[in-house]
Amino acid sequence: MLVDGKPYRTVWIEEDGTTVGIIDQRKLPFTFETVSLKSTGDACYAIREMLVRGAGCIGAVAAHGMYLAAQECLKATVSPESFDELLAEKGTQLCETRPTAMNLAWAVERALAEVGGEDCTQAKVVRAGGVAVEVADEDAEWCHSIGKHGFSVIESIFSKKGKNDPVNILTHCNAGWLAFVDYGSATAPIYAAHDAGIPVHVWVDETRPRNQGARLTAWELAQHGVPHTVIVDNVGGHLMQHGEVDLCITGTDRTTYTGDVANKIGTYLKALAAKDNDIPFYVALPSSTFDWKTRDGVREIPIEERDGTEVAWIGGDYEGGEREVKLVAGDSPVANYAFDVTPARLVSGLITERGICEADETDIRRLFPEKFSES
Amino acid sequence: MLVDGKPYRTVWIEEDGTTVGIIDQRKLPFTFETVSLKSTGDACYAIREMLVRGAGCIGAVAAHGMYLAAQECLKATVSPESFDELLAEKGTQLCETRPTAMNLAWAVERALAEVGGEDCTQAKVVRAGGVAVEVADEDAEWCHSIGKHGFSVIESIFSKKGKNDPVNILTHCNAGWLAFVDYGSATAPIYAAHDAGIPVHVWVDETRPRNQGARLTAWELAQHGVPHTVIVDNVGGHLMQHGEVDLCITGTDRTTYTGDVANKIGTYLKALAAKDNDIPFYVALPSSTFDWKTRDGVREIPIEERDGTEVAWIGGDYEGGEREVKLVAGDSPVANYAFDVTPARLVSGLITERGICEADETDIRRLFPEKFSES
Repeated sequence: MLVDGKPYRTVWIEEDGTTVGIIDQRKLPFTFETVSLKSTGDACYAIREMLVRGAGCIGAVAAHGMYLAAQECLKATVSPESFDELLAEKGTQLCETRPTAMNLAWAVERALAEVGGEDCTQAKVVRAGGVAVEVADEDAEWCHSIGKHGFSVIESIFSKKGKNDPVNILTHCNAGWLAFVDYGSATAPIYAAHDAGIPVHVWVDETRPRNQGARLTAWELAQHGVPHTVIVDNVGGHLMQHGEVDLCITGTDRTTYTGDVANKIGTYLKALAAKDNDIPFYVALPSSTFDWKTRDGVREIPIEERDGTEVAWIGGDYEGGEREVKLVAGDSPVANYAFDVTPARLVSGLITERGICEADETDIRRLFPEKFSES
Repeated sequence: MLVDGKPYRTVWIEEDGTTVGIIDQRKLPFTFETVSLKSTGDACYAIREMLVRGAGCIGAVAAHGMYLAAQECLKATVSPESFDELLAEKGTQLCETRPTAMNLAWAVERALAEVGGEDCTQAKVVRAGGVAVEVADEDAEWCHSIGKHGFSVIESIFSKKGKNDPVNILTHCNAGWLAFVDYGSATAPIYAAHDAGIPVHVWVDETRPRNQGARLTAWELAQHGVPHTVIVDNVGGHLMQHGEVDLCITGTDRTTYTGDVANKIGTYLKALAAKDNDIPFYVALPSSTFDWKTRDGVREIPIEERDGTEVAWIGGDYEGGEREVKLVAGDSPVANYAFDVTPARLVSGLITERGICEADETDIRRLFPEKFSES
């Protein structure tokens, strides 16, 4: 998507053909800055410290991290077998940076499987680079398809409203293009509707503690000219009670094959409010986000606990520079859970690259039959 | 309650017998500072700009504001009739500072009614001072009773848990002593249980946008030595799904006679999560918070919209001083709703100064029969 008129993706291989470029998303919306990753350690740092975040983006950066890892293995090992072993170790390092993110393990496993097939170490490096580009291209393509399918949901709501009455859509966190490689998941249908001339207005949850909604989603929508309003995370229920929300769309970091959705902490609360007010609650995802092995999201998906300083301190713009201020006095402990699980019963539908399905095993199986025959 | 070992209330008549003292709660928890109010305008400013906030505290400050107003009327008018008229005008000014707060109008009306009975203007001033003290004393007494009644709820939960297993209580916003005159509403049962040796642990919602939970409730609990953990407002649902919350207690700014509860924005979301996870959700209130005329809270209670800067900027401690940083970039509009309404069907019970009742007209009538025969 465009940044100041120049097309960007969230991750790319630099001109030198070996290093990896990303946007330091921590500095948005006040500063736009790109960073070059030169090692597996750099990639781990970028994921762990959330220079990049969001399901698709993490997966693509991990795939590019495996390309960096392969380059390191080429220098450190001689045989294809020891190369594979070392690469697997580096893959584990990448996987351990964010335990809840499904796409991370998926991208690493994919790289390991495809690179393992090559029989000389130089070919393994080239193949790892190829996998990284494939993962990124596929992600962009899938998000584009999600936009096309989700468009129909917005169009159908619009057709029941007055001609100039915008469709009010609530979203949580950032499942925009910054969370993927391009287009985004939850935002893809919104961009598609906006571009097709359907008036939309987006309620953007600020999404504490890291405020990805206020910082990233709002920035994206503003760059694209989509009308939107930033609200604190507490507001959604009130808006839904008063007919100010026609539709919720969020992303997901991991979705069970039964339709349970692990997404940014607080998603569950919005889904409860949507149910209570009879408002459709959709989750948009590329199928790489599915966890084909997990049945019960609430019981089985591990929820990352992050450092309390993310809650106790907050960064914002102060006279043109980013500055952190302290919100919680020193005498009070703080806890920081990063995700929660929204049970399938609260989800109206899943918008995938193959179309829309209900959030249950039967309908997910209809769209992705091969995933079930595999297991 | 104690502040650095010295007993305080949230509002008092100063040594001079004419001015009114309050704590500037905006500066907590990093700075403790008191302020002298000298006029109705000062009192309006203190309420509007939220130097004081919280149902009971607003009511008591309004009652003290009426004492300041009466002193002004004494200088400006000669006859008891013109005095009453001018006082009513000043009462209206006070009422307009925060449209949702029930106790505000209640305290002003009470002062007007009682002062109107006096037949000389000097006596009106003295009576206005008396009413202010009465309102404050009554509030403190009622909160003390709320603590006694709510204690039984915590005790009963504790008796079903293991001996050393603390009762985990989630609260939203600040319904502590700072929100009243003393003791608090939601916190009164917590302080009572803690003082009786029942192990309690409080999950403190930070309560965006103004963070009264992180700033005030956490500070209060820390001063009193009650174990607690600050969380962002998005976390409560996740904790409830995982058995980490035994009980929710919040305050309320206005409660219909049918049991609907208008409280700080986001309360409704926590009540939905409590219901979904079969966790008791109690609301603690002195009966002054009841709105005896309103039946349908969601449809009828006006919800204050405040300035968006409260969302777009946030204040915190930076090297020992309060500093505001900007959270939302300039291209993005912001909305700021201050309250939401939790329907009675989500409320397990109301803890009042007269005891606990269900959140329905019949049971509220049982505790407060005279309020129904009046109407």
